Amino acid sequence: SGGGTGGGATWAETTQIGGYGELHYNNLDGSGGASDKDELDFHRFVLFVNHQFSDNIRLFTELEIEHALAGEGQPGEVELEQAYVEMDLNDYHRAKAGVFLLPVGILNETHEPNTFYGVERNPIEKNIIPTTWWAAGAGLSGELGQGFSYDLGVHEGLRITDATSFAVRGGRQKSAEADASDLAYTGRLKYTGMPGLELATTLQHQTDITQGSVANAGSANLFEAHGIYSKGPFGLRALYARWDLDGSGPETVGADEQFGWYIEPSFRLNEKWGLFARYNEWDNRAGNSSQSEMTQVDVGVNFWPHPDVVLKADYQMQDNDNGQDQDGFNLGVGYQF
Amino acid sequence: SGGGTGGGATWAETTQIGGYGELHYNNLDGSGGASDKDELDFHRFVLFVNHQFSDNIRLFTELEIEHALAGEGQPGEVELEQAYVEMDLNDYHRAKAGVFLLPVGILNETHEPNTFYGVERNPIEKNIIPTTWWAAGAGLSGELGQGFSYDLGVHEGLRITDATSFAVRGGRQKSAEADASDLAYTGRLKYTGMPGLELATTLQHQTDITQGSVANAGSANLFEAHGIYSKGPFGLRALYARWDLDGSGPETVGADEQFGWYIEPSFRLNEKWGLFARYNEWDNRAGNSSQSEMTQVDVGVNFWPHPDVVLKADYQMQDNDNGQDQDGFNLGVGYQF
Amino acid sequence: SGGGTGGGATWAETTQIGGYGELHYNNLDGSGGASDKDELDFHRFVLFVNHQFSDNIRLFTELEIEHALAGEGQPGEVELEQAYVEMDLNDYHRAKAGVFLLPVGILNETHEPNTFYGVERNPIEKNIIPTTWWAAGAGLSGELGQGFSYDLGVHEGLRITDATSFAVRGGRQKSAEADASDLAYTGRLKYTGMPGLELATTLQHQTDITQGSVANAGSANLFEAHGIYSKGPFGLRALYARWDLDGSGPETVGADEQFGWYIEPSFRLNEKWGLFARYNEWDNRAGNSSQSEMTQVDVGVNFWPHPDVVLKADYQMQDNDNGQDQDGFNLGVGYQF
Repeated sequence: SGGGTGGGATWAETTQIGGYGELHYNNLDGSGGASDKDELDFHRFVLFVNHQFSDNIRLFTELEIEHALAGEGQPGEVELEQAYVEMDLNDYHRAKAGVFLLPVGILNETHEPNTFYGVERNPIEKNIIPTTWWAAGAGLSGELGQGFSYDLGVHEGLRITDATSFAVRGGRQKSAEADASDLAYTGRLKYTGMPGLELATTLQHQTDITQGSVANAGSANLFEAHGIYSKGPFGLRALYARWDLDGSGPETVGADEQFGWYIEPSFRLNEKWGLFARYNEWDNRAGNSSQSEMTQVDVGVNFWPHPDVVLKADYQMQDNDNGQDQDGFNLGVGYQF
Repeated sequence: SGGGTGGGATWAETTQIGGYGELHYNNLDGSGGASDKDELDFHRFVLFVNHQFSDNIRLFTELEIEHALAGEGQPGEVELEQAYVEMDLNDYHRAKAGVFLLPVGILNETHEPNTFYGVERNPIEKNIIPTTWWAAGAGLSGELGQGFSYDLGVHEGLRITDATSFAVRGGRQKSAEADASDLAYTGRLKYTGMPGLELATTLQHQTDITQGSVANAGSANLFEAHGIYSKGPFGLRALYARWDLDGSGPETVGADEQFGWYIEPSFRLNEKWGLFARYNEWDNRAGNSSQSEMTQVDVGVNFWPHPDVVLKADYQMQDNDNGQDQDGFNLGVGYQF
Repeated sequence: SGGGTGGGATWAETTQIGGYGELHYNNLDGSGGASDKDELDFHRFVLFVNHQFSDNIRLFTELEIEHALAGEGQPGEVELEQAYVEMDLNDYHRAKAGVFLLPVGILNETHEPNTFYGVERNPIEKNIIPTTWWAAGAGLSGELGQGFSYDLGVHEGLRITDATSFAVRGGRQKSAEADASDLAYTGRLKYTGMPGLELATTLQHQTDITQGSVANAGSANLFEAHGIYSKGPFGLRALYARWDLDGSGPETVGADEQFGWYIEPSFRLNEKWGLFARYNEWDNRAGNSSQSEMTQVDVGVNFWPHPDVVLKADYQMQDNDNGQDQDGFNLGVGYQF
């Protein structure tokens, strides 16, 4: 059926629309066998529709168009990244059920382009934490006092295969007819008790990261920790994440250990301009001696003509163990509302 | 071009946004050759955008993301399920043109998850009435007095093939470059003249259910009738639907007759809790003696923390003629706003 | 993360939703080898979401569902057709960055169905100007005084191939992982200094219309000019557009010249009814003597029950050089809000 019409604008008091978007231009030169990249792409177009059922029950939803064009034979995708109902249990604790962003890392839950430096997201939170990472399930969140808060969740697991050497990013099921044979459990502890500081750590257990589809692989654990600090014009972000995969399958290709870390100092020149540098290191096959470690340095600038609008420029330099580097510059436009 | 900005919130007095959604968890054991099912799926995410052009002209639209993820190689779909303009002809009659939900059955026009029992929709209104069933065309609706109302429509027909044994569900063209060689006609009469009671019957004629694509098949007729009754905490829903397909093609495989019915008593414990049971029987190849009849019993519970939010749990038991049964439980979360 | 909830309807003072849509019914008879067409299709369903960041920074976005159904194996597409941030530089000039509609022709920027005659868009602005034509890039617009205004842009180019005989329409990259090796430049001058009159001309230079993918093709230039005039009940639209493609590849198949023009007189009977006729001529392989010129005459009527709602009917007659004609009638329903 559908909502009625009439009744004035009162619906807009409990239902809200928002969104964000980012256009990327990549101009990269490949060496050592890596490909060039010369591309304009509206990478992410997102709409939020949220609703307040009552003082203590609310809905959050997020719909995304990736790569501007979705359909048979097209590069893009339409993705439902959030759709969950949250209920307050009391003043300090709340429960949720539905599809939600997993509580891990810095960017996974807060990735509007005006909130971070760099045209592209950092490679650790792409390849080790497979951001944007959402799952269907249920969870608890709350305040523990003295600046500590927590999140707990049980949700669909990853489903990775040996065809992609057990790299975790390929395993996201995206709540779309997701195999729920083997669920996963996530817990996060966060401290925001000092002004300008956030410290957080996440642990996740996957009961079978292949959902029973690969005989010589099974459970896996993720550990992640990060810090965000800002003092006056200075900012600092640092993050470490590491996977341990059980089974001889991952071990054979060195994917039993997958890890990465980055550190990102930044400096705000004024209200509108900011500079950053970032050192990134990661390896999706760190369990053996193969030449698989990747290293990337980024330096760049953000310009905010309005706090919710950003223009970005950066330069990336890779120094990968396999010698296949992509170096060059990126430009971006982003907004949030 | 596009709408302008500025002008305050007055646009929200004539344009309205709403929606609904449902996440399903199925845990079914297959026997007799039927497959197991262990799945988490955000089955339906829907947004309504409606607009009031004037006192007597209005627009209804409904956009759905099925299975959370649409694109090349993905399980989901983006579907435009409603987009029609309705005009009042006088105080009692109105006309519409565009894409609309066909007036048949209980769930086809009203399927927000908080309005019905059971995680999954009943199998009759999936396999015999192919809910959600929409079509492009034109229609008339109105009041006849004494509790009677009517709906009439001419619209795109189904386009089924012998490859699926002429099962009707596969024939929905969904107003997407739909073959309009052979249109269909639908009429419904509804009675709501007594408090707590709804009785309705629909007749539909398909001029060629294959759109001329199968030589030994042709026209078809659908008959449907249902009743809804509620008195205090007691509720009852019952529905019968039957197709008759002409031609030797359907007859050969027994698809010349396709029918189903269910009865669903329910009991509301209080404002927040309700119980139900449902007996379902259906057969898409009832025209011959093949072992094709399906039988399913469902029992379960709805919990509404808010009238527009629902948590569901149910257990299903099948007893199919072919011996291939899927038994197990389902959990669901749903909302409407 | 996503927008919060609460805060009343104030968000709707800076964010606005709108849209348009059109359902088409085509009943065409093919002769000389052309196919018949008997189809119902919800061709375009569009939502606008715009936001005002401040008095001089704003966002325009447009999301479209083409052909009602998008996903693996389906005919439709989800397209992000606009998403750009515009900033006022002063009272007369403004800059933009993002994905925007190119400033060319009559329909490309203004194509809501209630604003033009004919169920289908005219074939010149489909086959020569590949409307709807959007691109990622940056631009400047402004007023020059005395009724003159201008638009300048640098943006992704087309990427056509010899597989489609270099016809321009197939080359739109739609800002989806678009090859940005060879950009394009567009400029428009428009005059609206007399009541009822619009004159405009656009020039575009493509630095390599194949993005380096075809050796014997390269740069290309588009010239377009049009006029719109209305006086009392009389209206007139006329448009001419022509491509010149460099290289022996296009020349060999006659695609080095691609052109078209139309003239469309119309008469408004009253507030609700209008009549039109249109003569169209175009050729995507005009550079040689092949029998490739197409000619189409349309006559029809628009009925507006409300200024933003339209019902259309027209009849089309083709007289193509190759003898393959599609003649017949079209019906349409459209709206804008």
